Amino acid sequence: MSILVVGSVAFDSLTTPFGSVDRCIGGAATYFSVSASFFSDVSMVAVVGDDFGAEELKVFEGRRIDTSGLQRIAGAKTFFWSGEYGYDLNVAKTRDTQLNVFADFRPQLSEAQKQSDVLFLANIDPDLQMSVLEQTERPRLVALDTMNLWIDIKRSSLEAILRKVDLVVINEAEVRQFTQEANLIKGARQILALGPQRIIVKRGEYGAMMITPDAVFAAPAYPLENVFDPTGAGDTFAGGVIGYLASRKELSDAEFRRAIIFGSVLASFTVEKFSLDRLREVTMAEIRERFSEFRHLTHFEESE
Amino acid sequence: MSILVVGSVAFDSLTTPFGSVDRCIGGAATYFSVSASFFSDVSMVAVVGDDFGAEELKVFEGRRIDTSGLQRIAGAKTFFWSGEYGYDLNVAKTRDTQLNVFADFRPQLSEAQKQSDVLFLANIDPDLQMSVLEQTERPRLVALDTMNLWIDIKRSSLEAILRKVDLVVINEAEVRQFTQEANLIKGARQILALGPQRIIVKRGEYGAMMITPDAVFAAPAYPLENVFDPTGAGDTFAGGVIGYLASRKELSDAEFRRAIIFGSVLASFTVEKFSLDRLREVTMAEIRERFSEFRHLTHFEESE
Repeated sequence: MSILVVGSVAFDSLTTPFGSVDRCIGGAATYFSVSASFFSDVSMVAVVGDDFGAEELKVFEGRRIDTSGLQRIAGAKTFFWSGEYGYDLNVAKTRDTQLNVFADFRPQLSEAQKQSDVLFLANIDPDLQMSVLEQTERPRLVALDTMNLWIDIKRSSLEAILRKVDLVVINEAEVRQFTQEANLIKGARQILALGPQRIIVKRGEYGAMMITPDAVFAAPAYPLENVFDPTGAGDTFAGGVIGYLASRKELSDAEFRRAIIFGSVLASFTVEKFSLDRLREVTMAEIRERFSEFRHLTHFEESE
Repeated sequence: MSILVVGSVAFDSLTTPFGSVDRCIGGAATYFSVSASFFSDVSMVAVVGDDFGAEELKVFEGRRIDTSGLQRIAGAKTFFWSGEYGYDLNVAKTRDTQLNVFADFRPQLSEAQKQSDVLFLANIDPDLQMSVLEQTERPRLVALDTMNLWIDIKRSSLEAILRKVDLVVINEAEVRQFTQEANLIKGARQILALGPQRIIVKRGEYGAMMITPDAVFAAPAYPLENVFDPTGAGDTFAGGVIGYLASRKELSDAEFRRAIIFGSVLASFTVEKFSLDRLREVTMAEIRERFSEFRHLTHFEESE
């Protein structure tokens, strides 16, 4: 089963309490694709400048990732983000954002991409998300992420695309910002009322929560003694969730629950090193082992 | 099996985004005792003024609570706390604290209390916690709570009592404050290094985490659409945890996990109304039903 992802491929400059790194590989579509490719074929629609060279492209090589939809614009620069984290690793402070090639990005799908089985609309302008969705032959699962910027400046476009997706994967703070509702469950239900069947709320070190009209599922984050760099954790999580789901025939509630655990496992690797350094070296055996540890982390028995 | 609890019985004046209440019943020992009494016999050591009358004492009546150790000081006033919550119900702002009778509180245990099976040292001056522990014939389980004030002004006393307890039940922010360690797991392990076998970290709306030298257990909070007043949630949680444990012969890891779920269930009732208004009307059937719902909230299966 094939996943189509549209989103950013970027260079990031990062400072955490544990170190700094300059112009490392980043971008939502990058983290998402590498993560999802452990389970399914992924096809990217994204854009880079010619500063994103052969060395950088290696991050996608030897994986189930089709980069034929990754445009490379000669004489232009790749999207750049610079951010900083304090000891509260849940909150990034943006130092600089340079859209560069992303400013004029108009995604065009190939014929094969239009037939994708699953679509993930990573965090980009909701009008671009809509243009991608409209080019497809309605995949069996369409999921979206977004950010505070679009809630602020493109609310009606965001509402329009929210009405057309099956699954929303966003941060807790974005649920509260979008709905102006302090209670997370109430806020999530307001978003479901727009049309999506499910919402998965990302809560950083507190894990994730899935809300459907008739159930709630809560999963902790994998407890790590060394969280080095949280950049990309949310996109890696989404990649694990969607990647696993795309590999399944039936999208039952039980499969969604397992998908969330796989997403949490993948994200727990990403934060162990800068950029995709840890994610690139992870093996499926390590992923399965950590999945099993999640069982022990959350398991309890009914009384006698 | 009997529990001895030492801690505050109080009047609280509270403001939440959903309303205000003046001089309602509060105090850590109050919430703890009512919660624990669903599972075990509880004996209190606490002090009130004569403003805490027959009407107030009804909160303990008809329950497995022995109030013979609740001193009533004529002509004096009960401990008073006034606090306020914004939409972020995880953080209380203290408006006023009046120690009143609590300022001269010197707990004296009865012969029966000295033989208690389990001891819970609720959040009071760590020197008083030590004096209570020293009067006992070392119960089979000793647990303690504390607060930011004692970490600030009585650190060495707090360290001394921490070295003598089996179980620590404190807030996430207190772990970070006490250890000056941003990573919760690392911080918890620093506290375990002092002597306790287990620490249960209270995380408000994010649930609870238990850390032992060789395992971590994470449980979400019960998802509620209407959280009305978080006051007493942590003490109610501790009451459920300790109450359940005191009712068990063996204190295995599996029992601790169930205890945390029962604690979370009890706490989820407390926050639904002001003061102990909801906790007072809860039935064991409701508690068991919500316990079962926790299974569905956290349950996932291994892949096929």
